[in-house]
Amino acid sequence: MSPPKSFGLLLFEGFQVLDAAGPIDCLNILAMFKEKDIKLHVLAKSLDPVTPGPGNKSLPGANFNGQQLYKPTHTFSDAPPIDVLIVPGGRGTRLDLKQETDFIRKVNDGYDGHKPAQYLFSICTGSVLFARAGILDGHKATSNKRSWKWVTNSSDKVHWIAKARWVEEDRFWTCSGVSAGIDGMIAWIAHVYDEETAQEACDIIEHTRVKESGDDPFADLHGCEDVLPA
Amino acid sequence: MSPPKSFGLLLFEGFQVLDAAGPIDCLNILAMFKEKDIKLHVLAKSLDPVTPGPGNKSLPGANFNGQQLYKPTHTFSDAPPIDVLIVPGGRGTRLDLKQETDFIRKVNDGYDGHKPAQYLFSICTGSVLFARAGILDGHKATSNKRSWKWVTNSSDKVHWIAKARWVEEDRFWTCSGVSAGIDGMIAWIAHVYDEETAQEACDIIEHTRVKESGDDPFADLHGCEDVLPA
Repeated sequence: MSPPKSFGLLLFEGFQVLDAAGPIDCLNILAMFKEKDIKLHVLAKSLDPVTPGPGNKSLPGANFNGQQLYKPTHTFSDAPPIDVLIVPGGRGTRLDLKQETDFIRKVNDGYDGHKPAQYLFSICTGSVLFARAGILDGHKATSNKRSWKWVTNSSDKVHWIAKARWVEEDRFWTCSGVSAGIDGMIAWIAHVYDEETAQEACDIIEHTRVKESGDDPFADLHGCEDVLPA
Repeated sequence: MSPPKSFGLLLFEGFQVLDAAGPIDCLNILAMFKEKDIKLHVLAKSLDPVTPGPGNKSLPGANFNGQQLYKPTHTFSDAPPIDVLIVPGGRGTRLDLKQETDFIRKVNDGYDGHKPAQYLFSICTGSVLFARAGILDGHKATSNKRSWKWVTNSSDKVHWIAKARWVEEDRFWTCSGVSAGIDGMIAWIAHVYDEETAQEACDIIEHTRVKESGDDPFADLHGCEDVLPA
């Protein structure tokens, strides 16, 4: 299979900035320095600029986050075919987000003549949106460790792995909280391209990577344990 | 002195996404989880959305980066008083950017009745913009290690420190390449607030920080050496 070319970043109000920016900038590096054929689409329910500010404006931080505005390139209804769907987490995942989970399911299954996505990649509580969409049923996944109880309550059909910087199973790549998205994406690059390309991306962004997916001190720090499907 | 409240993120075409997103999201965390009084302004030469795509559209990666659009909240001519100016690097720093360096100098010096900024914080080749603005003359600074030769040629009045994840000197905080901005900002948070707040931010974003500013394997990797002022 040739490397995927069409990438979709799904945004929603209250996403966590670094969840999205870490993996996306690793891909920027591949496009800029390694001349990889990569096309990014930024997808949201409308073309209005998306803010990482929490959906509830009375929450602390609303002012700060509200100043950061990201412009989508497509809505869910006119999205092009997506080979790799990237979904960040953040406070916004506490809201309903039905349009977002419906879209995730469609991209996973294939729709309107588009093939099913080759990969679905989440960071932090983005995996809760995958779980709610039902696409992780019977699969292993990880997520944010500080919100582990809330995460694992979101679906009893997922095998939640606590001690994991990221979990790869079949088409599903789920990363732990926030900064873990960088290590997960570097591992994905090694998987899809090659180890040399992955290491070169790290050297360019001056990142000392976590190379083993099970190397995760934050599971113990936040007292997280595996949760088996019901 | 009370902690600074007004933060300005300076953007320009061809900025590196993670340079900006890493430190900004550490501040988001402080606003969201620690209820710190932080107000962010996103500053650029105009209110047009800014893309990290390279200025020269024929460079590889232009398509990929061009899909990422960040909306400024203010232009340089209507910017509010700024306590902390944050300047990312990226390919765009290879271009002229005179309006940006003029603005950096003004924020450093104080203007229109605004006091001089309390801190000027750069990531990656953002320090080259500081150097070109003349504000690092006689000061120690660091920058991206892969572009070290180009960086150190940008000014012979700066004491360029090679083996540094970040350098703090007086009001000037300059970080090494891309991901180093996270460690630099966490160190800044420890300096301005306290160590406990800094460590809590790390635990929330699941980041194992580089705690010593001299802990920098990338200087050796890229064969960088200190450069003294002429």
